[in-house]
Amino acid sequence: MTKLPSHMTVIAISQPGGPDVLVPEQRAVPVPAPDEILVKVEAAGVNRPDVLQRMGKYPVPPGASDLPGLEIAGEVVAVGAKATKHKIGDKVMSLTSGGGYAEYCVAPDLHAMTIPPNLSMSEAATLPETVMTVWHNVFERCALKPGETLLVHGGSSGIGTTAIQMAKAFGAKVIVTVGSQDKCDACLKLGADVAINYKTQDFVAEAKAATGGEGANVILDMVGGDYVDRNYDAAATEGRIVQIAFLGGPKATANFGKLMMKRLTHTGSTLRPRSAADKAAMVKAIETTVLPWIAAGKVKPLIDSSFALQDAGKAHARMETSQHIGKIVLTVGSANKV
Amino acid sequence: MTKLPSHMTVIAISQPGGPDVLVPEQRAVPVPAPDEILVKVEAAGVNRPDVLQRMGKYPVPPGASDLPGLEIAGEVVAVGAKATKHKIGDKVMSLTSGGGYAEYCVAPDLHAMTIPPNLSMSEAATLPETVMTVWHNVFERCALKPGETLLVHGGSSGIGTTAIQMAKAFGAKVIVTVGSQDKCDACLKLGADVAINYKTQDFVAEAKAATGGEGANVILDMVGGDYVDRNYDAAATEGRIVQIAFLGGPKATANFGKLMMKRLTHTGSTLRPRSAADKAAMVKAIETTVLPWIAAGKVKPLIDSSFALQDAGKAHARMETSQHIGKIVLTVGSANKV
Repeated sequence: MTKLPSHMTVIAISQPGGPDVLVPEQRAVPVPAPDEILVKVEAAGVNRPDVLQRMGKYPVPPGASDLPGLEIAGEVVAVGAKATKHKIGDKVMSLTSGGGYAEYCVAPDLHAMTIPPNLSMSEAATLPETVMTVWHNVFERCALKPGETLLVHGGSSGIGTTAIQMAKAFGAKVIVTVGSQDKCDACLKLGADVAINYKTQDFVAEAKAATGGEGANVILDMVGGDYVDRNYDAAATEGRIVQIAFLGGPKATANFGKLMMKRLTHTGSTLRPRSAADKAAMVKAIETTVLPWIAAGKVKPLIDSSFALQDAGKAHARMETSQHIGKIVLTVGSANKV
Repeated sequence: MTKLPSHMTVIAISQPGGPDVLVPEQRAVPVPAPDEILVKVEAAGVNRPDVLQRMGKYPVPPGASDLPGLEIAGEVVAVGAKATKHKIGDKVMSLTSGGGYAEYCVAPDLHAMTIPPNLSMSEAATLPETVMTVWHNVFERCALKPGETLLVHGGSSGIGTTAIQMAKAFGAKVIVTVGSQDKCDACLKLGADVAINYKTQDFVAEAKAATGGEGANVILDMVGGDYVDRNYDAAATEGRIVQIAFLGGPKATANFGKLMMKRLTHTGSTLRPRSAADKAAMVKAIETTVLPWIAAGKVKPLIDSSFALQDAGKAHARMETSQHIGKIVLTVGSANKV
């Protein structure tokens, strides 16, 4: 075992602002708590909440690192006294409570998962946030059933591309909305049955047409705003709609008569504030159900672009164009680039 | 067995309008379909949808009677060829698909329930709609758990007074909102833990105060309008909110960010358009769980007032004052008055 350095390079948020407020800093290498592991980071996923945090719009939960970065992949280099799931030398991917934009990062032992052998470190780093978000919201919260139709807004996002593949692996029909023909093509290539360009088509009419007039059984929405009422139109009787973000704003006017008459269920969740126990339970379910899909190549991480850790600002700028298709990843040290 | 008459007196809706459009008519006594029973009606419950139907605001579902009246109690006087649950002479209470304001009414055999011996016909007639509505929405759809807190808007309505008693029998804590001190007193007497007068108190603040700041786990709402967003405030994390009507209007503006951050579930339903099989399944669950509470006196029908069938207009006028506490019932023929 190599001796750990006392300090490391991280990307910190120097002040709330644009991508250029992301700057390298030297910090002490964290020491894992009894139930944590320390990971030598080889790649870190970039997510929307990182961008919001950088802008000062996403307060860091109490006790969490002030550094951005909610998911990592790398090698375990130290384990806490009570961490028994993983051991030094294991290659793991994990959700973190922040601090992923760094050479080393701690993660709860029970939140880390062994990386399937067919994935690179960069691919693995893009999975924890999206897989856990899709699993919890689409499969647990909305109880998608095989044969049902899932409508995914933002189909080409990291979440969207993951949702398409997981729902198809599960035997559901998938409709996506995206903002360009390129994105339509990418989603269809990933297995989506129908791709709707919301800039030129009415997603309510198209989703109804694609389901024989019935509507979607589950809708995964990261838009909100005027999509709320339109989702009520696009949903089937007993449909379930889940909010995971509000790119179009959280405040909206809706006709809740539709929710009642169609017996819809409108819910939502965010992953970060969930308890460690809740997250560990999701990880366990994912290890049983989703990791086999990944190992079998049915669910493949789709990487839009890869940036070196010190170029985190460029990665954020890319995300803010919304032109990306799939995930954006940061590579650290010797990580294999895409 | 007495020979059945060919014709009967019913209360029909002569045209859309006020209570005085409810007029007696002679109609042929209905013949039960193979899966139906014919009931000699002794009492019929009055419900909000009857009022809306009278006003022309609640279209009658295809195949249903044009007469008002969604619940009845009486004696079985004929059975269809495939009706095996009940036999001639049984005293039953049942949901109907309309036509309850009449001397005779058909009901699906599987929707009728044997009347517990401790109830009068008038009491029994007030149960099917409210018990099924509360059962499905609070217990099935919102999965209320013992020890959780239920917030009921319209606590003194037929639905509200039933919800209070069923939730208390189940071991939940109950908070209600009502519009007067008299109604507060009536709800507390029925077992509600906290009664809020919405005209003088802020229900969000009071519901939070009554739950140590946590909020209500389940909210049964028949108001809608600006209550939607306030329900999001009054709900606990992972709270479930169910709409069963919109006395305050179905269109509303809400901050769905609260729904997401608190992981709320907002749903709703109406009983009438449910399939016969869905209703039969609810009846079966109610016979197992709720009828024992009624037989044990833990859930008692609360009758506000009783009118003879020909005075149905007066019964509607009473409901439209919203001064009633509990259910309004119509008595037919020899039914025991309250």
